[in-house]
Amino acid sequence: FFLFLFLSTTTHTHTDTDRTQRDLLKKSWYGRPHNRKFRVGAALLAHDGTIFTGCNVENASYNLGICAERTAIAKAVSEGYRSFKAIAIASDLEDQFISPCGGCRQFMREFGDQWSVYLSKPDGSYLKMTIEDLLPVSFGPEDLKKKRVFTTQFGS
Amino acid sequence: FFLFLFLSTTTHTHTDTDRTQRDLLKKSWYGRPHNRKFRVGAALLAHDGTIFTGCNVENASYNLGICAERTAIAKAVSEGYRSFKAIAIASDLEDQFISPCGGCRQFMREFGDQWSVYLSKPDGSYLKMTIEDLLPVSFGPEDLKKKRVFTTQFGS
Amino acid sequence: FFLFLFLSTTTHTHTDTDRTQRDLLKKSWYGRPHNRKFRVGAALLAHDGTIFTGCNVENASYNLGICAERTAIAKAVSEGYRSFKAIAIASDLEDQFISPCGGCRQFMREFGDQWSVYLSKPDGSYLKMTIEDLLPVSFGPEDLKKKRVFTTQFGS
Amino acid sequence: FFLFLFLSTTTHTHTDTDRTQRDLLKKSWYGRPHNRKFRVGAALLAHDGTIFTGCNVENASYNLGICAERTAIAKAVSEGYRSFKAIAIASDLEDQFISPCGGCRQFMREFGDQWSVYLSKPDGSYLKMTIEDLLPVSFGPEDLKKKRVFTTQFGS
Ligand SMILES: [Zn+2]
Ligand SMILES: [Zn+2]
Ligand SMILES: [Zn+2]
Ligand SMILES: [Zn+2]
Repeated sequence: FFLFLFLSTTTHTHTDTDRTQRDLLKKSWYGRPHNRKFRVGAALLAHDGTIFTGCNVENASYNLGICAERTAIAKAVSEGYRSFKAIAIASDLEDQFISPCGGCRQFMREFGDQWSVYLSKPDGSYLKMTIEDLLPVSFGPEDLKKKRVFTTQFGS
Repeated sequence: FFLFLFLSTTTHTHTDTDRTQRDLLKKSWYGRPHNRKFRVGAALLAHDGTIFTGCNVENASYNLGICAERTAIAKAVSEGYRSFKAIAIASDLEDQFISPCGGCRQFMREFGDQWSVYLSKPDGSYLKMTIEDLLPVSFGPEDLKKKRVFTTQFGS
Repeated sequence: FFLFLFLSTTTHTHTDTDRTQRDLLKKSWYGRPHNRKFRVGAALLAHDGTIFTGCNVENASYNLGICAERTAIAKAVSEGYRSFKAIAIASDLEDQFISPCGGCRQFMREFGDQWSVYLSKPDGSYLKMTIEDLLPVSFGPEDLKKKRVFTTQFGS
Repeated sequence: FFLFLFLSTTTHTHTDTDRTQRDLLKKSWYGRPHNRKFRVGAALLAHDGTIFTGCNVENASYNLGICAERTAIAKAVSEGYRSFKAIAIASDLEDQFISPCGGCRQFMREFGDQWSVYLSKPDGSYLKMTIEDLLPVSFGPEDLKKKRVFTTQFGS
């Protein structure tokens, strides 16, 4: 169902993809701010290799805060990007692969469901999943145009 | 991965569960309001059999709206309920099982990941899935208490 | 700019309005749930005298929570109400009139800007303000239909 | 209550502040993306003169979108900024000063209530207001630490 890999830290030959992946994971860690409650960082890899980092932005009215993943994506969109290869997420939770919340999964889904999400641990290990793995049976912008019915089994 | 059933409309002997299920699906349909853009309804079944209906509440600042599923759950919580068996969702999209957005999946997840979600079509057919099916590798309120690290492979 | 009144607790003749007002403030207090971080309650008075209570509904992903005021309004809307007279808000903050967040002010604004908000303290004192006082120079659903330009001083 | 100025486009001597202000308004316009429904742009001026631009980022689940103002601020925070002088907002609404929604006002408020917001029209005219003007009687991060009561006039 998903791929588990321990990220090797020993020096050996890396392919370009290895380097990008490691760079992305590293940058997701540095994206973490010194926030009050829950420090999360994200790094987003655009189709042309540009990396955008994000942190969670808290608010005194909790529900108006923005997660690290959404910050990274909004940054990229505001620079004209709409096509992404991968996003990596990091936190300081010791024994847990930090996972995107449902809101962020839907926010990622807006840009397709076949790109990758790296859920990482502070020790550098990670899970690699697709948006579709994380948000199955989803809907996206293309579904807003679909046909609607006016009568149903239940009456209108 | 998930269960597909066409809801029979012919008259035959129903078990209690059948009746509750059908009632829930019917009520989710009636929850739909006459909104500007996208009419969605939800019906939430609490542990004691009480059903709460919800509709989406729109806002001129789109991102401040609330989905039908969250309305139904917030209603139930404000009446003291925190344990649920199932939620059914209905819309007027013709050929599509209406699916909860990622934000709603996380909102449902707050109350456990083993209860059921019915994604329905206007013709009465539906998919039955669990929260865990819809939001795999999720985190919930219990995860907020977990241990944090102070040094990592990447440096602090 | 706003009206300050200390709610008398002595027994004397109350008008109907006094009673409704006091009832609303009392109910806003009872709306408060036993939440993890910040206990807020709200009571919403509909045009026909019906009162809807709400509490804040938290989420492990903080930004997916819903404030007490929005819960009360979403409940009312899902029961077919769209016209309101007043909303009262209560919290356990000792020396402070609990005030709605900006998100809730916009959520209230959807239903007009001339109805009342009671910001209360645990000792029963309160401020009475209108939505317009709390969200000046606002926009609402009627503004979404306004005319747009295609050329500007700044070029397109 | 607020200051109204028509931004002159004729060539005359500008002070530094004039230039920065004009630059900010111009950049807010260019921040506008080609979105489906409502094109809004924002430009945020940090304490050291750096300008961050933002656009609204839409989502198929409307309530998961992010406004232009929040995008600009989240970008700045993710680059380590937390002190701001002004934000300008632009849209293509012809006869209207585009105003921040309540959610954005609260998001701005997190960083103080004495900095400036420019609400502009496509013809270059604008209103200049403070966060406090736009969100009176507000609460911010400093209020989360205040004392709570355990008994009240209304009982527990
Ligand atoms: Zn998130
Ligand atoms: Zn939803
Ligand atoms: Zn609020
Ligand atoms: Zn906004």
